[in-house]
Amino acid sequence: MLPVAVDAMGGDRAPGEIVAGARRASEELGIPVVLVGRPDELTNTGDLEVIPASEVIAMDAEPGASVRRMKDSSLVRAAEAVRDGKASAMVSAGNTGATMASALLRMGRIKGISRPAIATPIPVPGHTPTTLLDAGANAECRPDWLVEFAGMGTVYARDRFGIEKPRVGLLSIGEEAGKGSPFVKSCFKLLSEPEWADNVGAEWIGNVEGRDVMTPDVDVIVTDGFTGNVTLKTLEGAMKSLIGRLLVAIDTDDSTREAGTVLGPALDSMVSEFHPDTTGGAMLLGVRGVCVISHGSSSSTAMLNAIQVASEMVNAEMVDHLATAAAVD
Amino acid sequence: MLPVAVDAMGGDRAPGEIVAGARRASEELGIPVVLVGRPDELTNTGDLEVIPASEVIAMDAEPGASVRRMKDSSLVRAAEAVRDGKASAMVSAGNTGATMASALLRMGRIKGISRPAIATPIPVPGHTPTTLLDAGANAECRPDWLVEFAGMGTVYARDRFGIEKPRVGLLSIGEEAGKGSPFVKSCFKLLSEPEWADNVGAEWIGNVEGRDVMTPDVDVIVTDGFTGNVTLKTLEGAMKSLIGRLLVAIDTDDSTREAGTVLGPALDSMVSEFHPDTTGGAMLLGVRGVCVISHGSSSSTAMLNAIQVASEMVNAEMVDHLATAAAVD
Repeated sequence: MLPVAVDAMGGDRAPGEIVAGARRASEELGIPVVLVGRPDELTNTGDLEVIPASEVIAMDAEPGASVRRMKDSSLVRAAEAVRDGKASAMVSAGNTGATMASALLRMGRIKGISRPAIATPIPVPGHTPTTLLDAGANAECRPDWLVEFAGMGTVYARDRFGIEKPRVGLLSIGEEAGKGSPFVKSCFKLLSEPEWADNVGAEWIGNVEGRDVMTPDVDVIVTDGFTGNVTLKTLEGAMKSLIGRLLVAIDTDDSTREAGTVLGPALDSMVSEFHPDTTGGAMLLGVRGVCVISHGSSSSTAMLNAIQVASEMVNAEMVDHLATAAAVD
Repeated sequence: MLPVAVDAMGGDRAPGEIVAGARRASEELGIPVVLVGRPDELTNTGDLEVIPASEVIAMDAEPGASVRRMKDSSLVRAAEAVRDGKASAMVSAGNTGATMASALLRMGRIKGISRPAIATPIPVPGHTPTTLLDAGANAECRPDWLVEFAGMGTVYARDRFGIEKPRVGLLSIGEEAGKGSPFVKSCFKLLSEPEWADNVGAEWIGNVEGRDVMTPDVDVIVTDGFTGNVTLKTLEGAMKSLIGRLLVAIDTDDSTREAGTVLGPALDSMVSEFHPDTTGGAMLLGVRGVCVISHGSSSSTAMLNAIQVASEMVNAEMVDHLATAAAVD
C-alpha cells in the first residue's frame, strides 16, 4: 500500500500530537505513513519520511483563497501526493474548508458527483454508527445532490461498517412524507424514486427525525450541510454537557465519589465511545482519493484512528466503489 | 386570575394523566384550572369545572383542516375560552399543529408579528435554560421573521427566567459573520442592525453553533422552525441515548450495580433536569394569549409544570410585553 499522507502542520496541537499519532500508526499498526510539512519544525519523526512543504494554512484562514495562493502549503502538497500516486490517502486535522478545497482542486471530483460531502459517523451504543452526511461541506444544497449523498453514504456505510444493505433516511421534522421544508419535500420526492437505491443497494426508509440519529433504526442519514453541521455540533455539545453534569452528580458527597471510583472504568469506556477522537474523523466523499478530516483538537489517538480509517478505506477500494455507483446513476 | 383552560382530551395519556395533572395544579399550587373536553369521558375531576366539547382532534390529524372543521373540539373550545375572556391561558399535550392553528385562528396574532413561533427552553446544567425558537412552527422562514423571533424570545427569557438583558444568538455553522447558508447570512445582517435589540433590551451576540445550545454562553437562540425542530429532537435523542448507555455502564457487574444504587438519587435528579416533562412545555409566542404546548407523552407531572408555567406567564403579563415590543418594532 502507498503511504497515507499526513498533514503534520494542521490542527490545534500540530505538529507534536500529529507526528506522535502518525508514528503510532506506523509503529503499532504497520500502516505506511508520510508526513507533509516544514522539515525543520518536525521533530521526533522516527523513521517517517517527510514531504517538504514550506507554507501552513492557518485554522481560521479563508479556505478558497488560501489554497489557490499557498501552493507550497502542507495541505496542498498532501493532496498532490495523492493525485500524483505518491500517497494512497490524505489526513488532516487542519482548516476543514481548506482541506476540502485542497482535495477538490488537486484530486478532482468523481465523475457523476456534483459536490463532495462530509460523512461523519455518529456513535450508536451497542450498534454500528450512523453515517450523517452532509455534515458541513455545502451550506446550501440542491435536492438532487442529496440523492448523490445517499448513494455515497450507502457505499461508505458498507465499506466502513460492513452493512450490506444500509437503511437510508432523510432528516426531517416528522416521519410522514409531507413533513418538512419545501427543500426537504423535494428531496423526499427524488429519494422515493427506486432507481438510486436499487442501483447502489440501499434501503430507502423515508424521513427520520433528530431523535433517530443515535438509534439503531437507520444507518445513513442525508441532509444539507447546514442542518447536518448543526446536528453534529448539537450532539457534541449535548454529550459534553451531560458528561459534565454526570461528574457533578458523582461529586455530590463522599459516598457518591466512592461510587464514582468504582464506576470509573465503565464510565471511561462510555465516554470514549462518544468522544470524537474515537470515530476516526470525518470522510470527504466525492473526491478522487481518500481524504479524512480530523477534529481540530485532535490528539495523537485521534490521528492514529484517522490514519487507520484512511488505510481501511484505501484497502476497501472505497473510491472505486463510489465511482462505480456514481457512474450508473 | 382567570382559570387556565386545559385540553383534557389531548396527548397520548389523555384524559387520565391530563386530568390528574390539572387537579394537582389546582390542589397543590392553588392555580385555577378549567378542563375542556367530553364531560362523560372525564372522571376523577374533583372540584374542577368542565367546558364541554364534543369532538377530539386526533394526534395525527391534519391540523388546519381539523381546526376548521371540528368547531366543537376541545382544542378549539380551549382557544375560544381564552379569546372570550373565560380563561387566562390554554395548555394542550395534543396535536401540536392543531394547537397552533386553534390558538392562531381563535386568539389571533399580536399586531406586528408575522408568524407565531414555538419557544422551547433547553436545560443548561447549573444555569437558566436557553430559549430556542422557532422550534417547529414554521418549516420555512423569511429573514425578517427571525428578527421578530429574537424580540419575542427576549421578552420570554426575561419574563420566564428573569434575565434582564438576554444574550441573543443566531444558530449557524461557524461563529464568524460570513458563515452559514444564504438564508442565515441574510438573518445575520438584519439582526446586526442595533434597533431591534435596543428596543427590546437584548444583547445581540452574533452567530452561535450547535455546541453552544446547552452552555451558559447564550440565553436565546433564533433559527428557522426546521433547524430548530431538528436541533431539539437531536438533543432529546442524545439525552435518551446517553442515559441509556449510562445504565448499561452501571449494569457491568455487582460492584458497579452497587455503586449505581449509591448514585441513584444524584442520577435521578440529573435525569429529571434533562427530562422534557420538567421544562413545562413549549410556549407559542405571537398569539394574543398564553398557549403552552406540552409533549405528546405528557405525564401528570408534565401537565402540572405546564400549567404552572402558563399561570406564571399570565401573571407576568407576557402577552402585553410581547405586544408592546412588537408595536415599537
